[in-house]
Amino acid sequence: MSAAGDPRKTLVVALCGGVGGAKLALGLSRVVPGADLMVVANTGDDFEHLGLAISPDLDTIMYTLAGLADPRRGWGRRDETWTFMAALAALGGETWFALGDGDLATHLERTRRRAAGEALSAITADFCRRLKIATRLVPMTDDTVRTRLRTDMGWLDFQDYFVRRRCAPTVLEVAYDGAARARAHPDVLAALRDPRLRAIVICPSNPFLSIEPILAVGALREAIAGSAAPVVAVSPIIAGRAVKGPTAKMMSALGLEVSARAVARRYRDLLDAYVLDRADAAAVAELGIPVTLAHTLMTTLADREELARHVLASADAVAKATA
Amino acid sequence: MSAAGDPRKTLVVALCGGVGGAKLALGLSRVVPGADLMVVANTGDDFEHLGLAISPDLDTIMYTLAGLADPRRGWGRRDETWTFMAALAALGGETWFALGDGDLATHLERTRRRAAGEALSAITADFCRRLKIATRLVPMTDDTVRTRLRTDMGWLDFQDYFVRRRCAPTVLEVAYDGAARARAHPDVLAALRDPRLRAIVICPSNPFLSIEPILAVGALREAIAGSAAPVVAVSPIIAGRAVKGPTAKMMSALGLEVSARAVARRYRDLLDAYVLDRADAAAVAELGIPVTLAHTLMTTLADREELARHVLASADAVAKATA
Repeated sequence: MSAAGDPRKTLVVALCGGVGGAKLALGLSRVVPGADLMVVANTGDDFEHLGLAISPDLDTIMYTLAGLADPRRGWGRRDETWTFMAALAALGGETWFALGDGDLATHLERTRRRAAGEALSAITADFCRRLKIATRLVPMTDDTVRTRLRTDMGWLDFQDYFVRRRCAPTVLEVAYDGAARARAHPDVLAALRDPRLRAIVICPSNPFLSIEPILAVGALREAIAGSAAPVVAVSPIIAGRAVKGPTAKMMSALGLEVSARAVARRYRDLLDAYVLDRADAAAVAELGIPVTLAHTLMTTLADREELARHVLASADAVAKATA
Repeated sequence: MSAAGDPRKTLVVALCGGVGGAKLALGLSRVVPGADLMVVANTGDDFEHLGLAISPDLDTIMYTLAGLADPRRGWGRRDETWTFMAALAALGGETWFALGDGDLATHLERTRRRAAGEALSAITADFCRRLKIATRLVPMTDDTVRTRLRTDMGWLDFQDYFVRRRCAPTVLEVAYDGAARARAHPDVLAALRDPRLRAIVICPSNPFLSIEPILAVGALREAIAGSAAPVVAVSPIIAGRAVKGPTAKMMSALGLEVSARAVARRYRDLLDAYVLDRADAAAVAELGIPVTLAHTLMTTLADREELARHVLASADAVAKATA
């Protein structure tokens, strides 16, 4: 890879879903200083449960960036306790969505502040400040977008499919209710227009459930396409398999090839470069855009940082080539 | 004390506040079988906090009857964890009211069900069924009553005075907002009219904060006064001191003598008998109603049961005398 790019280009925008994407976001946060990194979080998975406003992807990213994420489970908080769930079960409450005791504080405080009129983005910014997260973490919109899935069991809300039914139904169609009329967060639109923007990174998240809800938000896809900065995606598929979650199963059910190449095709009109795992070297020649190979299975913190550097170098190389 | 009273009189109604009252309620539940005991809980302390509907006295009684109460702290649940509060503090949330992780399940589930249209009494009955409480636990009303205190710092909500300000302000006046137009729970009114009613017990709770809010609920005081069953109170004051909480301090600030006798005077038009601690033997002669002495400082479970038996025997003795 080439050396660092234009020194005036300091900003990076990353589109990010849950666990997989958050790993790269953490890597980027260690390479891009402070507020120069903006992570745009999917909120299509957000839902109301037990009267609480829950934002699973936003929280996974926030906990990851704050060093609070559980390192083994992949979701939720480290040093979590589960007294609430046990007591709720004894009272006959709904227990299909696991809420840790510490995690509850996030949902309860966010719900309280939203009820008092604060925007999700403002609450998120304040939580991040208190948790000493220097990266800017921004929900894709302050409006309501809900990912819904048409399945062999009918239309399902995302969490109903994902958590309650453990991805068992076959997905036939994905819809992002409210996305077309939702307004992209103005800070995101401003960042995409900023002449200092170095790269737009599409994290290795589920395309249907994490990235496309973001791209479906009114004006966002156009703003990305119109941005002068290179767009680089990292494949969430390695050698025909998803690292985690239902990506591979969904691609298959939707009639798509389960491959890094098929993911790239979904972003094709946006992509300037694509980062594949070394296991997918064979796909390099077929995509028609600059492709680089990296170790994309992020096991260690060093893996996350190294992939982040690789992604930015890919962007810089494309920027130089087109300059 | 005399032997058991009329065998057709099987029902007991107990008016009850928080910790002190709940001790006697537990004793009564071990002496009066199953649904023959109705505990009427003060809900004047109820409040909204962090968007949750919290009923402190109701929960203290429920946890006590279910064997879930913390035996040392005197409030909250045994084997409680506090992960939520620590996480909430990190997010800048309000932490002046301590909410344990298990306790949160009660508040969240109750809030959810109330928002769905269920009455507090129906939710309480279902919780009790699930927690295997055979005693009937009934909130004094399903309507909203709020105990408010005029203090040297102005009018304060009860929990603001009691928890946030740790009873530091001087209380000048007590009001029960909403009590006059609140409807007593129909099951309570029915029990008070029931020919099987053996006794109405006023538990050793704070008169101003626990018992008088119940008596202030529309039609309840009259229904108690008009009941054929004897009314027996247990003094919350022992030798001029309250076992727990601000009772003594409040009596003093309100210009009352801090004594078991002064508490009895507040209930005088209702009382048929009064149970004092042995330490207050000197007050026996002055009250003009039958008074008995007992060991009222309930330290052990045996103490609670013994006092319960004593109170019922006092009621039976009065009933026989007037029969």
